[in-house]
Amino acid sequence: MAQPATPPLKHELDIVIPTMRNLHFLEMWRPFFEPYHLIIVQDGDPSKSIQVPDGFDYELYNRNDVNRVLGPNANCIAFKDSACRCFGFLMAKKKYIFTIDDDCFVAKDPSGREINALQQHIENLLTPSTPFFFNTLYDPYRDGTDFVRGYPFSLREGVPTAISHGLWLNIPDYDTPTQLVKPLERNTRYVDAVVTVPKGTLFPLCGMNLAFNRELIGPAMYFGLIGDASFGRCDDMWAGWCAKVICDHLSLGVKTGLPYVWHNEANNPFDTMKKEQKGIYWLEQIIPFFQSVVFPKECTTVQRCFIELSKLVKEKLGPIDPYFHQLGDSMVAWIESWEELNS
Amino acid sequence: MAQPATPPLKHELDIVIPTMRNLHFLEMWRPFFEPYHLIIVQDGDPSKSIQVPDGFDYELYNRNDVNRVLGPNANCIAFKDSACRCFGFLMAKKKYIFTIDDDCFVAKDPSGREINALQQHIENLLTPSTPFFFNTLYDPYRDGTDFVRGYPFSLREGVPTAISHGLWLNIPDYDTPTQLVKPLERNTRYVDAVVTVPKGTLFPLCGMNLAFNRELIGPAMYFGLIGDASFGRCDDMWAGWCAKVICDHLSLGVKTGLPYVWHNEANNPFDTMKKEQKGIYWLEQIIPFFQSVVFPKECTTVQRCFIELSKLVKEKLGPIDPYFHQLGDSMVAWIESWEELNS
Repeated sequence: MAQPATPPLKHELDIVIPTMRNLHFLEMWRPFFEPYHLIIVQDGDPSKSIQVPDGFDYELYNRNDVNRVLGPNANCIAFKDSACRCFGFLMAKKKYIFTIDDDCFVAKDPSGREINALQQHIENLLTPSTPFFFNTLYDPYRDGTDFVRGYPFSLREGVPTAISHGLWLNIPDYDTPTQLVKPLERNTRYVDAVVTVPKGTLFPLCGMNLAFNRELIGPAMYFGLIGDASFGRCDDMWAGWCAKVICDHLSLGVKTGLPYVWHNEANNPFDTMKKEQKGIYWLEQIIPFFQSVVFPKECTTVQRCFIELSKLVKEKLGPIDPYFHQLGDSMVAWIESWEELNS
Repeated sequence: MAQPATPPLKHELDIVIPTMRNLHFLEMWRPFFEPYHLIIVQDGDPSKSIQVPDGFDYELYNRNDVNRVLGPNANCIAFKDSACRCFGFLMAKKKYIFTIDDDCFVAKDPSGREINALQQHIENLLTPSTPFFFNTLYDPYRDGTDFVRGYPFSLREGVPTAISHGLWLNIPDYDTPTQLVKPLERNTRYVDAVVTVPKGTLFPLCGMNLAFNRELIGPAMYFGLIGDASFGRCDDMWAGWCAKVICDHLSLGVKTGLPYVWHNEANNPFDTMKKEQKGIYWLEQIIPFFQSVVFPKECTTVQRCFIELSKLVKEKLGPIDPYFHQLGDSMVAWIESWEELNS
């Protein structure tokens, strides 16, 4: 009998899962996730116990662990909106992280085959990105494709990929107003593509199905303070905007597209409406802010960029709401924690 | 019996075809193209006659017509590399143009259905583009999709779409070195997506399967002088870069992706090698040039932008080769011709 092939990056990748409930969803992922180490971050009440199916290799953290590990900086980790997942990024020691929500299941491609999301994320992360020029046949490093005529040869080596942003079949990642207007819309279109988000272009990062190179961009993957500040459901977006402007500055790549997961549960728009309220309003000032960010040349590391960004957040977004002053402080606490745990 | 539906934009769209041979390829397109008016531009020797299958409504131009119509400006129209197609853009009177190469046939989608390329281009052109922010579920105006969470509401109206760039199954649009390295590679991946090329990002435009709004961007769709200057196979690229920087300046959109055509004939790489030689080399200076173009505020029309661009081409690219001085002059002659024929 043939030996099973070694799962790719087994010793270099951790899976981070934020959750408030028993992780039955792992049963469906068993053939894909079982070889890997899981870092589970329990959201909400730490006295509640979370069940993990047998056979998985995992560590589980809750609010008490965050307080114990981070001490005075513990408040930088939010326990709302699955933003607590970034505590898992802090504790991880591997080069690559894959993070997934507990309402996401294995999707099927148009031929009916189960999609190995992890495998596709790894392919995305191990091949370069092309942020400086658009390739019309999409990711030129995929089998069966290449750079098209007119693509400058000097740009064909690309840049290292820092982030792989996967998508969702079934329930799309819509905001509350769109959900209210289109309660029955489901994403059924399987787009067989991976695209580099070009330099200078922002995108809405969703944390549901996401992988990244922790060594390249880890310190920017901070999901924010969020908490009770009514900036709910913007935790992953915030991380995405911070990470993207830093990737652009440091010539790192962000890919989006494949792999798909099957997203099973829509949020109740009547619950999310209140949470999103300020975010939708603030967005109109946050986006121009991120579009205008320019880092000084001394910012040669993600940490330095992030500290610089924290200052700009306080200075430029502080006037909108005191929340952004707290957020700026939390960004500094996050970097302090990162340095402490990763020195 | 039901009446056949009126073909979309029948009175507002011309089809432009550059060719050197009898147009048998139109037989396959008959159900799609027959309702429309064709403008055929004959490349090469004007004494040769071109046959067009019966039943099509067309006008046919050759080199003699170009000389007659444009007089002293006639030399701005090249008769190499299908660049002559832009004479058809000049002569057209309709709002929309679809242009296609005579070695492109009807492709099939994964379900085996023939793709109505024209219909998809029209959908692309009649819906807005989103150049200021990336939507991870691709074109938000397509049925079954929308803007995702985190997409600023103020940007959801998009901007008018000026260009719809379609792709090719079978023979991909590779340059000579790639063709030599991968002679058997065929594009078999049907990517079911339409993407806006973000603001500030250049892309390689291919003229094989292309549509545009002539009123919005027509004067920028100049396929260059090309001719014998060994800048061969860069005619469409050139138009694409000029048009893209102008679209970015005027807040117009460029979409790429669907529809596919079936591209049947690979160029012989031993023929194209010499043609492409200078282009591949010059590309490394041309791209940074276009990336640095900034138009003054007075440039509020495509024509003004194009004249400004002609000056920059002479000033910044002229030092590379005298060809760019001629090209700059030709760009002015092109705009003069456009104004004369469209006033």
